Amino acid sequence: MEQYAIGVDIGGTKIAYGLFDGEKKLVYKKKEPSNPELEAEPFFDQVADTVQGILKDFHLVPEQVRGVGIGMPSYILFEEGRILKTTNLTKIKDFPAKAYLVQKLDGMRVILDNDTHVAALAEHSQGAGRGFKHMIYCAVSTGIASGIIINNELFRGRYGWAGESGHAIITPHQGIRCGCGNEGCLMSYCSGSMIVKHIRKKIADGEPTVMTELAGGAEKITAVHLQQAFDRGDPMAVWAVEQMAQYLAIWLYNQYEILNINCFVFGGGLVHFGDRLFPRVRELFDEYNDNDLPVYFKFAELGDDFGIVGAAELLY
Amino acid sequence: MEQYAIGVDIGGTKIAYGLFDGEKKLVYKKKEPSNPELEAEPFFDQVADTVQGILKDFHLVPEQVRGVGIGMPSYILFEEGRILKTTNLTKIKDFPAKAYLVQKLDGMRVILDNDTHVAALAEHSQGAGRGFKHMIYCAVSTGIASGIIINNELFRGRYGWAGESGHAIITPHQGIRCGCGNEGCLMSYCSGSMIVKHIRKKIADGEPTVMTELAGGAEKITAVHLQQAFDRGDPMAVWAVEQMAQYLAIWLYNQYEILNINCFVFGGGLVHFGDRLFPRVRELFDEYNDNDLPVYFKFAELGDDFGIVGAAELLY
Amino acid sequence: MEQYAIGVDIGGTKIAYGLFDGEKKLVYKKKEPSNPELEAEPFFDQVADTVQGILKDFHLVPEQVRGVGIGMPSYILFEEGRILKTTNLTKIKDFPAKAYLVQKLDGMRVILDNDTHVAALAEHSQGAGRGFKHMIYCAVSTGIASGIIINNELFRGRYGWAGESGHAIITPHQGIRCGCGNEGCLMSYCSGSMIVKHIRKKIADGEPTVMTELAGGAEKITAVHLQQAFDRGDPMAVWAVEQMAQYLAIWLYNQYEILNINCFVFGGGLVHFGDRLFPRVRELFDEYNDNDLPVYFKFAELGDDFGIVGAAELLY
Amino acid sequence: MEQYAIGVDIGGTKIAYGLFDGEKKLVYKKKEPSNPELEAEPFFDQVADTVQGILKDFHLVPEQVRGVGIGMPSYILFEEGRILKTTNLTKIKDFPAKAYLVQKLDGMRVILDNDTHVAALAEHSQGAGRGFKHMIYCAVSTGIASGIIINNELFRGRYGWAGESGHAIITPHQGIRCGCGNEGCLMSYCSGSMIVKHIRKKIADGEPTVMTELAGGAEKITAVHLQQAFDRGDPMAVWAVEQMAQYLAIWLYNQYEILNINCFVFGGGLVHFGDRLFPRVRELFDEYNDNDLPVYFKFAELGDDFGIVGAAELLY
Repeated sequence: MEQYAIGVDIGGTKIAYGLFDGEKKLVYKKKEPSNPELEAEPFFDQVADTVQGILKDFHLVPEQVRGVGIGMPSYILFEEGRILKTTNLTKIKDFPAKAYLVQKLDGMRVILDNDTHVAALAEHSQGAGRGFKHMIYCAVSTGIASGIIINNELFRGRYGWAGESGHAIITPHQGIRCGCGNEGCLMSYCSGSMIVKHIRKKIADGEPTVMTELAGGAEKITAVHLQQAFDRGDPMAVWAVEQMAQYLAIWLYNQYEILNINCFVFGGGLVHFGDRLFPRVRELFDEYNDNDLPVYFKFAELGDDFGIVGAAELLY
Repeated sequence: MEQYAIGVDIGGTKIAYGLFDGEKKLVYKKKEPSNPELEAEPFFDQVADTVQGILKDFHLVPEQVRGVGIGMPSYILFEEGRILKTTNLTKIKDFPAKAYLVQKLDGMRVILDNDTHVAALAEHSQGAGRGFKHMIYCAVSTGIASGIIINNELFRGRYGWAGESGHAIITPHQGIRCGCGNEGCLMSYCSGSMIVKHIRKKIADGEPTVMTELAGGAEKITAVHLQQAFDRGDPMAVWAVEQMAQYLAIWLYNQYEILNINCFVFGGGLVHFGDRLFPRVRELFDEYNDNDLPVYFKFAELGDDFGIVGAAELLY
Repeated sequence: MEQYAIGVDIGGTKIAYGLFDGEKKLVYKKKEPSNPELEAEPFFDQVADTVQGILKDFHLVPEQVRGVGIGMPSYILFEEGRILKTTNLTKIKDFPAKAYLVQKLDGMRVILDNDTHVAALAEHSQGAGRGFKHMIYCAVSTGIASGIIINNELFRGRYGWAGESGHAIITPHQGIRCGCGNEGCLMSYCSGSMIVKHIRKKIADGEPTVMTELAGGAEKITAVHLQQAFDRGDPMAVWAVEQMAQYLAIWLYNQYEILNINCFVFGGGLVHFGDRLFPRVRELFDEYNDNDLPVYFKFAELGDDFGIVGAAELLY
Repeated sequence: MEQYAIGVDIGGTKIAYGLFDGEKKLVYKKKEPSNPELEAEPFFDQVADTVQGILKDFHLVPEQVRGVGIGMPSYILFEEGRILKTTNLTKIKDFPAKAYLVQKLDGMRVILDNDTHVAALAEHSQGAGRGFKHMIYCAVSTGIASGIIINNELFRGRYGWAGESGHAIITPHQGIRCGCGNEGCLMSYCSGSMIVKHIRKKIADGEPTVMTELAGGAEKITAVHLQQAFDRGDPMAVWAVEQMAQYLAIWLYNQYEILNINCFVFGGGLVHFGDRLFPRVRELFDEYNDNDLPVYFKFAELGDDFGIVGAAELLY
């Protein structure tokens, strides 16, 4: 509403910057590649330089800026602003990013949070969750995670990573080991990167599928090939999509039982499965749920800018 | 703090009433049996009569009373104060209890909530959770449920029953069917009433155990016999306690992943298992949790009055 | 978002009803005259009948309705839903309106609040205060009052009437006695009804003004004649508008000092003074305020329906 | 509850440090003089050194510490942690204290707030305001200010200084000019330092009082001499105490009208006036307030450590 805000969306391959005016309107945006080879300090030096450059180009003094909000695929100790580890940017770990950036930016306010939290803020503030007092943003992508809005505010829990619902355990000591360190967490059965591992395992076991051919080799199979194969009626693809539906339904139902929040907003690459996946997820959810009070399944409404929009929302 | 408050704790066998003064001190309490044969209207007529009697005995006019808080083992649409169904008091269902009582009590303020929520309020306000901004009260008893405190307030979700974490599904379409309507929810493996069903099933399958003898018949086995048998090294009891530990650990870990709340307060009959159960639960939890930031397991500190204390807390 | 909601806006001369669908869209509205001769019970019988009629016309059963939100110009004990007194509807006092209506409406959820609170909810949710975490709605009309939004929620205080800032005292035991029982409260110098009393006093003291002629008698002078006279340069009108500006500026500045909320949204009849009044108020405010951080003065954006919109917002 | 916390209470003459353990128990405290001659950087270097020394003495690594909370008599832009100006430490101004300290303390979490806010947190958490959901801490001392607790949390407003109620204006452009830049703010009539100015003015005008003699000169008169003179029946002292009562009553009543918070907790040097002052303040408050719902006037309960206790509370 007042003063400018800068939202930074850091991903494994690119960094997007957005400058928002006092009415939260995006007045400028910029993308640059992210360099996963960089250590934390030079990595954030680049971020600070770009932010300083934007401030300079727009002739903004610190008093005219609410601060810099940053979303990135990391585990972050929120209060301290310390990054514990980062997906795809493996050198960005055990680093006091907030303290480092505050210093680099001459005392400017800096807030860091993980990408799912930031997406939840964006969809709640300006997207599909508008007007819902409580909402769960459901990231269905390479990983599976939640951004939980309670009483119109993002809930982060004690250390900062509330919403790691994808790592809730369903089959302890069974299944494929996940990056979380456990076997049998929910996302190990249904995330975009994990479902492909199940497929490859079946292929290695000698089961046939058109996906190998579509991808040009088992190792190259992605969720996109899974969709294509599903559309052709490939039995393994049908089986894989059904498995995803089964575990996603449990994931959602369990969150509903625990939190009794009735607005789920889906975002991330798996939304492209569309009718191949979500009607079945809904069907299974409704089977578990013996109550007919309204529960909403919605799709994220914001386009490509949701990352910078949500990052700027960290400052309000 | 100010004005008197009345807390009512309705259970399957008794109803307890507490009168609290302006400093939240219990100045009077009373118990009477609850009659599960009564329909909702005569049942709540009795409650209203007893409340009126207490007000009369203490010469309190409505202006001197904050209201009546009621905890009971029901699914309650919180905003409306409508009871959907009640454990052990099966005739108390589909009933607009709040509206009915407000009328019976001449417009006095009435708030109803479920027993786990009420216990969470009590332990957070005056018991083991004091000073924790976020806390999960873990009812481990005949049933398994949570009372979630977020930002020092009880979180109820959209309809009022946030915390039904015991009904999160772990093995869909497998195992013993629970009252929730599903097979394979967490509590179907580890609650006080459900573990006994697993034991009976094994006995029916011909497996030996000292519990049959201790209880005087398989049908009479309760959690108490399980403890006794465990202490004697009975293999089936050892197996049953290990199963409880396995599922309770998953239950707690999954809540920790979803909410990142690090203070768990245990209450309910299963706390009597003590060292037979909880160190093992902790061990399994720590195995799943690859992070060494503090997570607290505590036991409820309030004695028998927690039900009326928490019911009165509904009014503050 | 979900289920229908009914918002009722009760004023001294009319009652407006709005039915909102699950997307908060107004699907039906209706006005009827309010009868100030009626005692509380028949008055609210009429309200209940109209609500029942709307439900019937739209074939809505209670389960499809979130409840009935009511805004009215009353002092209301919020938790109890008891009306203490009502401006212009003097028979509506000392009445347990919520309990009465809940019974009349078969247990439907009912929430009552005062008209300024309701307007604040409307402007914060859908009007000029959108996106401001903290906001003060400033009712400048016959009376002067505030609706305080803190952390995106209406703050009501302990008993329910936070925002009676117009009755803050500025000149104890001096000036014209206000309905609040005190002399020298802020609104006794600058509200629409009180400024006219100051004008009449001057007229009675023999001072000349074109307002007497414009209104057809001193007793008929209203804020509208004050505007007309001001536009003609009438000295008494100029003096009266300056007095209003002086006291409104203090009123706003004092709220800013106490709450450090920087978004003020003006609504009510006095907004029609427009440039005659508000630039001067702003000038005086800025004189008092020795700090140049942004403070926003905005005008209400919602049209005639703000009363029913805000009343429905009570239910979310 | 968990991890250690450091609370720092910075005043014009001394700095107190407290180390609190995981149960919020004070395990160590230390005082050192504050040097008002120091510029901001060397001043906070001293603070950082002492904090580092305590961590070292207790063999605490950063992971074992929640952070450092600091209370001081400053206007602080809360989110940025920038000090705008400081009473009695006039060189501590326009300084990014948080960013500076975070860097000095190797990324440790640092939160700064003003002394009234910090006292409010202490009294709400552990003192006279325990259990009140809303509370106003009323600092009656050299200055007059409020610390407003809403929904069990300190409310800071948009920029960070909610509670500057002492600077609410009562007689614009009249009276003694206050440090806030205005004449006629409430505290210019009734704070400990300002009442003495009124007394000196009367003395300069030739009015007699025993205070001159008690203090050894008009310039040496303090609130302590005012109490002594009042006890001897000195007419000017009686007049001065009555003036304080008049303005304090308006101050409290106006906050009650605006916020409808009914628990006021008094702290600061003027509480030593005791029965000379507060019964009269209450009498006047009750005169203005035409409603008999309970309003509590309480005195702060924490002893000398309230500053470090409250500063540590900033971290929870």
